[in-house]
Amino acid sequence: MLYQYLDISKLKVGDSASLSKTVSESDVYQYAGITGDMNPVHIDEEYAARTAFGGRIAHGMLAAGFISAVMAMKLPGPGAIYQEQSLKFTAPIRIGDTITATAEILEIGPKRKSARLKTTCINQRGVVVCEGIASILLPRKKRE
Amino acid sequence: MLYQYLDISKLKVGDSASLSKTVSESDVYQYAGITGDMNPVHIDEEYAARTAFGGRIAHGMLAAGFISAVMAMKLPGPGAIYQEQSLKFTAPIRIGDTITATAEILEIGPKRKSARLKTTCINQRGVVVCEGIASILLPRKKRE
Amino acid sequence: MLYQYLDISKLKVGDSASLSKTVSESDVYQYAGITGDMNPVHIDEEYAARTAFGGRIAHGMLAAGFISAVMAMKLPGPGAIYQEQSLKFTAPIRIGDTITATAEILEIGPKRKSARLKTTCINQRGVVVCEGIASILLPRKKRE
Amino acid sequence: MLYQYLDISKLKVGDSASLSKTVSESDVYQYAGITGDMNPVHIDEEYAARTAFGGRIAHGMLAAGFISAVMAMKLPGPGAIYQEQSLKFTAPIRIGDTITATAEILEIGPKRKSARLKTTCINQRGVVVCEGIASILLPRKKRE
Repeated sequence: MLYQYLDISKLKVGDSASLSKTVSESDVYQYAGITGDMNPVHIDEEYAARTAFGGRIAHGMLAAGFISAVMAMKLPGPGAIYQEQSLKFTAPIRIGDTITATAEILEIGPKRKSARLKTTCINQRGVVVCEGIASILLPRKKRE
Repeated sequence: MLYQYLDISKLKVGDSASLSKTVSESDVYQYAGITGDMNPVHIDEEYAARTAFGGRIAHGMLAAGFISAVMAMKLPGPGAIYQEQSLKFTAPIRIGDTITATAEILEIGPKRKSARLKTTCINQRGVVVCEGIASILLPRKKRE
Repeated sequence: MLYQYLDISKLKVGDSASLSKTVSESDVYQYAGITGDMNPVHIDEEYAARTAFGGRIAHGMLAAGFISAVMAMKLPGPGAIYQEQSLKFTAPIRIGDTITATAEILEIGPKRKSARLKTTCINQRGVVVCEGIASILLPRKKRE
Repeated sequence: MLYQYLDISKLKVGDSASLSKTVSESDVYQYAGITGDMNPVHIDEEYAARTAFGGRIAHGMLAAGFISAVMAMKLPGPGAIYQEQSLKFTAPIRIGDTITATAEILEIGPKRKSARLKTTCINQRGVVVCEGIASILLPRKKRE
């Protein structure tokens, strides 16, 4: 089985990777079902329409999943171990918004064993919906 | 549809609420599908068996979803607005583990407008798998 | 549970069966999640809008699933064993399109042990989106 | 938004890429639900246990989805257009099997506009469960 691995020895501060997804109603409903977060603002249009949001919004923590995904899939990719994540939810995500999660290397630890990344999710208008800092343990070597 | 609302005026430091879920393979697979986090450690048993985990594990960020759920559903319940969350991933979550997410009020802000909560996820053996601090805006009043 | 079985001894060249489904965003998203095919043309509206398709399209291989379904459910129904399928993807499937998959018996093999079927998927405007030939082993007898 | 694209000008015969997934019950059930292929051999353990398979198996066409995924995600990646696929289903996929889908470039067409790939799915014991040939249109250029 082959996975494409980054060469950790070449990782440098400023490297970044992104992934994008248009958040569908089905994403929000499945996420609600998996986590049990059935907050009416996510799954009850009648309720949500009467809130300041004016309609159903996605779970902020779903965007955190996109952050997890971009690090697991792209930078640094499989083999890294998630240690810490701080998150600030700065704007609502509406159903139909296209969210781009970006991870950027801020700092590489001693012996290249760890890294800190700036993690940001923006919508299709460039508005930051969620941001924070991730700490990970880097994969020990390029696996075969 | 009825939602049970807390009387925010009675909320006090030390109040806590929990919810538990046994994490199924289908939870992990659906979460992978929604977020795009197809890290082989989550969906490839052959690969995962050769890692230090010895088999497939759940996404740490899935536990963060349980934290979001306990706050949205129980303490303080619908109407609160998620502002910040810090997360430390301290142990792997295996498929079949039963995770209990607990939120406990640490601090209530001026004019009862905001709160900080200690958020902890433990498994069925009491091992902390994920912990951190949440900041929320409290719902303005008891809604009808 | 009851299944309706065809009387294989009466199957003849030219027999056909169809099924139709309107392809929803949730079908496409769940299919992406199950297969790992997160091609942005399927899940990223901002990206897809800038392609020749003008917006998100379904996975062509999802239509192949409808072909599998019409044979498994209707002609010849449960008990057949799928051997081969050729597929030509001839037009995009947009979210919201209603796809009709049709299987038609082209040839029945010696001793009624096998069959070849023409398999076609059209959209609501009659445009062929996917077509090909299926080879199956027929169920040995009418089961009880 | 960033996607990692292969440099099509460097693509050569023999290049290959793979992805692996352990097929879960939830994959099979969701796939059945999306496609409507509710063949009892996939979703009825009582029925399936009495067939030659001895228990529920996955839809062969699900493996075809993994083939679609490896081409869409890795080789050649987003931007390619699926034209044709032949499939031979050569062994059953049981729930719990880990399937590795591999695409390998067999031929690159004139002006690098198209390619033919050998597509193979094997299980964790190396048994081929599905194989065939794919024809695709290559992305016209490395996109930014």
